[in-house]
Amino acid sequence: MRPLKALISLEEAMHIAMDLVRPIERKETVPILDALRRVSAEDVHSSIDVPLADRAGMDGYAVVARDTFPAGKFKPVTLRRIETLYADGVPRKRVASGRCTEVATGSTLPKGADAVVMVEDTERERDLVKVYSPVHPGENVSGRGEDIARKSLVVGEGEVLTPAKVGALAAIGMPRARVYARPRVSILTTGDEVVPPGKPIRAGQVYDINSHTMASVVRENGGDPVSLGRVSDRLESLRAALKKALANDLVIFSGGSSVGEKDIIVDVLRSMGELLFHGIAVKPGKPTVLGRVNGKAVLGMPGYPTSCLSNCYLILAPMLCRMARLPPPYERIVEVPLAKRVVSTIGRVEFHTVRIVDGQAVPAYKESGAITSMAHADGYIEIPANVDLIEKGDVVRVVLF
Amino acid sequence: MRPLKALISLEEAMHIAMDLVRPIERKETVPILDALRRVSAEDVHSSIDVPLADRAGMDGYAVVARDTFPAGKFKPVTLRRIETLYADGVPRKRVASGRCTEVATGSTLPKGADAVVMVEDTERERDLVKVYSPVHPGENVSGRGEDIARKSLVVGEGEVLTPAKVGALAAIGMPRARVYARPRVSILTTGDEVVPPGKPIRAGQVYDINSHTMASVVRENGGDPVSLGRVSDRLESLRAALKKALANDLVIFSGGSSVGEKDIIVDVLRSMGELLFHGIAVKPGKPTVLGRVNGKAVLGMPGYPTSCLSNCYLILAPMLCRMARLPPPYERIVEVPLAKRVVSTIGRVEFHTVRIVDGQAVPAYKESGAITSMAHADGYIEIPANVDLIEKGDVVRVVLF
Repeated sequence: MRPLKALISLEEAMHIAMDLVRPIERKETVPILDALRRVSAEDVHSSIDVPLADRAGMDGYAVVARDTFPAGKFKPVTLRRIETLYADGVPRKRVASGRCTEVATGSTLPKGADAVVMVEDTERERDLVKVYSPVHPGENVSGRGEDIARKSLVVGEGEVLTPAKVGALAAIGMPRARVYARPRVSILTTGDEVVPPGKPIRAGQVYDINSHTMASVVRENGGDPVSLGRVSDRLESLRAALKKALANDLVIFSGGSSVGEKDIIVDVLRSMGELLFHGIAVKPGKPTVLGRVNGKAVLGMPGYPTSCLSNCYLILAPMLCRMARLPPPYERIVEVPLAKRVVSTIGRVEFHTVRIVDGQAVPAYKESGAITSMAHADGYIEIPANVDLIEKGDVVRVVLF
Repeated sequence: MRPLKALISLEEAMHIAMDLVRPIERKETVPILDALRRVSAEDVHSSIDVPLADRAGMDGYAVVARDTFPAGKFKPVTLRRIETLYADGVPRKRVASGRCTEVATGSTLPKGADAVVMVEDTERERDLVKVYSPVHPGENVSGRGEDIARKSLVVGEGEVLTPAKVGALAAIGMPRARVYARPRVSILTTGDEVVPPGKPIRAGQVYDINSHTMASVVRENGGDPVSLGRVSDRLESLRAALKKALANDLVIFSGGSSVGEKDIIVDVLRSMGELLFHGIAVKPGKPTVLGRVNGKAVLGMPGYPTSCLSNCYLILAPMLCRMARLPPPYERIVEVPLAKRVVSTIGRVEFHTVRIVDGQAVPAYKESGAITSMAHADGYIEIPANVDLIEKGDVVRVVLF
């Protein structure tokens, strides 16, 4: 057996891991609705003015502003209505002095007119419109290109497409968006004792938890999980599986990275590529392995479900976000006082699950094998390597699950 | 024309809207990976113990604890190894006093053994194992059912399935989860001037922005958008479209709720059901309509893109979350000082977009028609109806887009 000796710090491990992965260069074209929260792969400039032409910003009457200057509450100016437009109406008549055209918000402004009087400031009897308030030229008019000028930048390369940005692409008439491809992540579970959910199980076997939690974290951080199933612990099976898994952008294994004699991920990495680290000063999650094969990162996660999942949050999620070009994980964070003193160990980062109860963080940590300690928790706190104690009442940053 | 008269407060509007919609009762069964962030529709109890049997919590040797009591750093106890197990190994031999079985983390504990000595505390020469440290009964053993006891509650009805909960379902062997169906939301755009992106456009026409932003917000808040396209502003088209749209759980229209003569959503709601409100004291977003037809909510959004989108955040998202049984919108919030004084109007809620620059909120508000004012913003602040001014330097809550 081979004990874990040279543990590296979480900080150093993250440095190596983040340096190893690169933002995905592949691009794809998708309908704008499917582009939500994807990352634009190009600068998008508008090929049109929005609005396409000057248009009414209010319901009312398009006028020659100068005509209205003498108007007042008790001395209306009377204009003759020559046409009525709805929002989609194309004006056919020119508005000369003394005339007006009835417009709806969004109507194209008729030639000759340079302002819109709000309907609230008018009174109409058949085609005679009394205007009770003056307007200045340009008043209640949206100028051509006022929202988006032709050739202006609408969405920049690298920007995440929020609902408003999807809307901006629609505004300039783009039905599709060019986005960066999501990182494809091969997920493998090692261990002859691991059984997929839905099959019968006997003593000595466990259901495959990790490939499901890993795939979930991949999906929540902009990646496409590709589950390749269980691999036997034999060297040749593992080599063959890794060869196949390398077709994708990142490979993660769970199990097989503890200290048992069957811990052969390390041997496979050494023989097929390069071992970058084996063992991190973090609890839980110590027996984590990172290697590089054919220029791709291969991450070996601990077999214990909570160790695997806590490392998914601490290590895998930031790697994925870098590959997916997303900002650091969309962390939903609350800052609340700790309900109870928590003790940690100097020299390693500790990951403690908590529940939020009555506005306080109550430690929910059970033991590293207990998936329920995470399933029943609301989030986690990270205790730095140089801190050995957090007192009751101290405010902690809880990252919500 | 019909000016908006009796505006109701945003608070009152929300009260009516939230009361009108109900959590979806339909259920569906999906693979656990697709159940991520869905809402469990049932209490799930475990049908098995996890672990299924006592097992080794460490790599080492399964022993009779009593045998090790005299062991010390300089006076090892020597035991005879009778068997070697790997994680999936099923022990065949009983461990009697003076004997031991080599185990890996996760191995089933052999009969007779009641503790595991860590490999680090031993030395082995062929089948003779020297133990340098005593263990107490139960030490380094995970008891049967210790993580999840048979019949215990693993996931409760109404809980959102986080990665850890997906893992917990896997742990008890469930390949599928029973979840509540997502609310299906009919999306319609009214207005003869509206053109779908990808088609040519002429003066007086605009591309359909709102059905894309509405669908995006629906998707981000647990709903399934069903885009039913554009409807003509004619009464009969609108009635027919609404009839079809009512097949889903919620109907949203955009456009057609301003004050123009063609504003016939209100007439349709009155004739087919009940009009609950028309006009909210909020800026932008005033001309918003809510009605009930066949017991279903029909929401008419303003045609102006930013008015429509800001009301999606303020009104639609909370309605959807209630229907989808999700906690109030997953708001990503930052609290930062305002870079510049913002003025608002007493008596209505105002929605102001901001950019986050150097840790400050810089107002990005342009005008209600400008989708770019939202596309280029990072989030928004909500100014209550009773506040008319926020000073430079005051800390504001920014909801990130």
